[in-house]
Amino acid sequence: MSPMFVPGPVDVADEVLQAQARAMLPHRSKEFETIYKDTAERAQQLFYTKQRVFITASSGTGLQEAAIRNFVSKKVLCCVNGAFADRWFEVAVYNGKEADELSFEWDEPVNPDRVAEAVKAGNYEAVTIVHNETSTGLQNPVKEIADAVHTAAPDTLILVDAVSSLAGAKLEMDAWGLDMVLTSSQKCLALPPGLALGAVSERAMKKAEKVENRGWYFDLVRMEKHRLKDSSPATPAMSLIFALEYQLERIFQEGLENRFARHSAMAKRVQEWAEANDQSIYAPEGYRSQTVTTIRNERGIDISSLNNFLKEHDMRIANGYGQLKNKTFRIAHMGETQMSDIDELLKAMEAYLKQ
Amino acid sequence: MSPMFVPGPVDVADEVLQAQARAMLPHRSKEFETIYKDTAERAQQLFYTKQRVFITASSGTGLQEAAIRNFVSKKVLCCVNGAFADRWFEVAVYNGKEADELSFEWDEPVNPDRVAEAVKAGNYEAVTIVHNETSTGLQNPVKEIADAVHTAAPDTLILVDAVSSLAGAKLEMDAWGLDMVLTSSQKCLALPPGLALGAVSERAMKKAEKVENRGWYFDLVRMEKHRLKDSSPATPAMSLIFALEYQLERIFQEGLENRFARHSAMAKRVQEWAEANDQSIYAPEGYRSQTVTTIRNERGIDISSLNNFLKEHDMRIANGYGQLKNKTFRIAHMGETQMSDIDELLKAMEAYLKQ
Repeated sequence: MSPMFVPGPVDVADEVLQAQARAMLPHRSKEFETIYKDTAERAQQLFYTKQRVFITASSGTGLQEAAIRNFVSKKVLCCVNGAFADRWFEVAVYNGKEADELSFEWDEPVNPDRVAEAVKAGNYEAVTIVHNETSTGLQNPVKEIADAVHTAAPDTLILVDAVSSLAGAKLEMDAWGLDMVLTSSQKCLALPPGLALGAVSERAMKKAEKVENRGWYFDLVRMEKHRLKDSSPATPAMSLIFALEYQLERIFQEGLENRFARHSAMAKRVQEWAEANDQSIYAPEGYRSQTVTTIRNERGIDISSLNNFLKEHDMRIANGYGQLKNKTFRIAHMGETQMSDIDELLKAMEAYLKQ
Repeated sequence: MSPMFVPGPVDVADEVLQAQARAMLPHRSKEFETIYKDTAERAQQLFYTKQRVFITASSGTGLQEAAIRNFVSKKVLCCVNGAFADRWFEVAVYNGKEADELSFEWDEPVNPDRVAEAVKAGNYEAVTIVHNETSTGLQNPVKEIADAVHTAAPDTLILVDAVSSLAGAKLEMDAWGLDMVLTSSQKCLALPPGLALGAVSERAMKKAEKVENRGWYFDLVRMEKHRLKDSSPATPAMSLIFALEYQLERIFQEGLENRFARHSAMAKRVQEWAEANDQSIYAPEGYRSQTVTTIRNERGIDISSLNNFLKEHDMRIANGYGQLKNKTFRIAHMGETQMSDIDELLKAMEAYLKQ
């Protein structure tokens, strides 16, 4: 495994890659249904929830679409301060919902007071928030936003995209009163892409029953009926579920708190390195991601030339996302990445900068 | 690999399972984009088409939903003579379309004349047909139906589910004038589940541009824009695509025509065995599937007891689907299954029947 410092698809441990290679089973067999059920139940711990977890054969965006189609009849508020929050807004619009965008600068967190104001005024069925913006390395204060929404508009559902944070930074679904938290396999879970996981609250499920035009593939009410029989409406992505089953075991062996601490220490190391090298961090202090750091390219590094240099050492980082390309670059420190990998990367980057 | 004679997920060859275990790459890298593009282009041969092939991280039902959301603004005709055709109808209804069901007995093929009558009268934007009904082992005369629709209502799009036949039985998309043909990975392609492939005609793409509320995840217009840049809007299921790339090589090495002949010979063998053992075939002569045979359980076999017996020999067959459970049973002969496997199965079944 040569370390990639890109924010997903991340490197997958060899033994986890191998776990995919298990022989097939009929998906309606007791053998597979047991694996499916146990895996979904064990995954609850990642979300700090006792609520149901759905596993879909899709990317995380599939569950963004599921959230919109199942929990919004008409009006949704989308908090947007990054590319993936903007995508969720787009998903809502393209699914024919009346979606209002509450925008913030990309280098500013979503402000709980402004969200409270908006939900008080707007009669929204749900609000969407991205926990950890993969595009900017900014972590939004989901707990504070949720508190504000609960006070201002207690019936409004709180939908959270934790694609690049779940299992890498703590997010307590039940304690914070969140209604849906979704993630995908190829980020902090350090699995290949192709699976998405979504935990859903009881009141959100009740709401879904009343929402029309939920479709079929992402209809959570249909999924729930099958889930209660340890099954799924469509054929699940079995080899990825075998890998998930195996990887959950590894994650719980490390321990979630230890995992968060590992990520947090790597984030701190990268931040300090950047600042010591005359480059500032894109996200403001207090809102910096534990899983991916976006650095302002204040030394005018040619990112593709840097990456060519790094590739000679079997490493690579990510350029800035979309409008931030070349203006920033990103170093991911999630999944299997260890402090020693980060040390090696920063040493190589220093060598490049000295050239 | 112990042979399973169930109609998907089917057994996957060890070396194909292993192909999934390749290390990850950034999905927006040239390395991966080249694999993605080449694989989608090679897959055109499976469809006998020069049209674009989309690869989605979903089951086949996901592409049933894509077909409905992209090609139908309002009215669709669904030809139904089995459980998966019925599912497609349901997908249309749950996506808010005005869907009309043209029903046939499950042991009768879809009748081209009746389809022609219906499309002439109904002003439908599209008609849905399942090529090979996994639930009944009946193969519908798609070419004849397509001819009838072309004559009766030339503007009506022809959408075909070939989930359990593509790469196992010949279906010529371009020669027959089909507008979308979809399949999934875990049937005749003999891959793990989690990928769907859909080939789409030029006129269908033009139509999609005018259809509203296509959503995001299955929006084919969005996928097409990305496809032209060798990419996909959402993160693709990379390990499954590695396996697809590898498996296509194996399929073309065998040769498609040889593959069809192998399936057809196994179908004939199973049909003759059933009839020689006082059990008739569910599908009528002339409309029998090459990939899965459904046998009427006229000897009153206890299917689960039979399967327990077979499992002792590392084999298993499938019970009848839904309403046909215990009244029929199914023997699949698709993917990697060889005539010698079928011989072994039938020998074991005879041993069971003699008990």
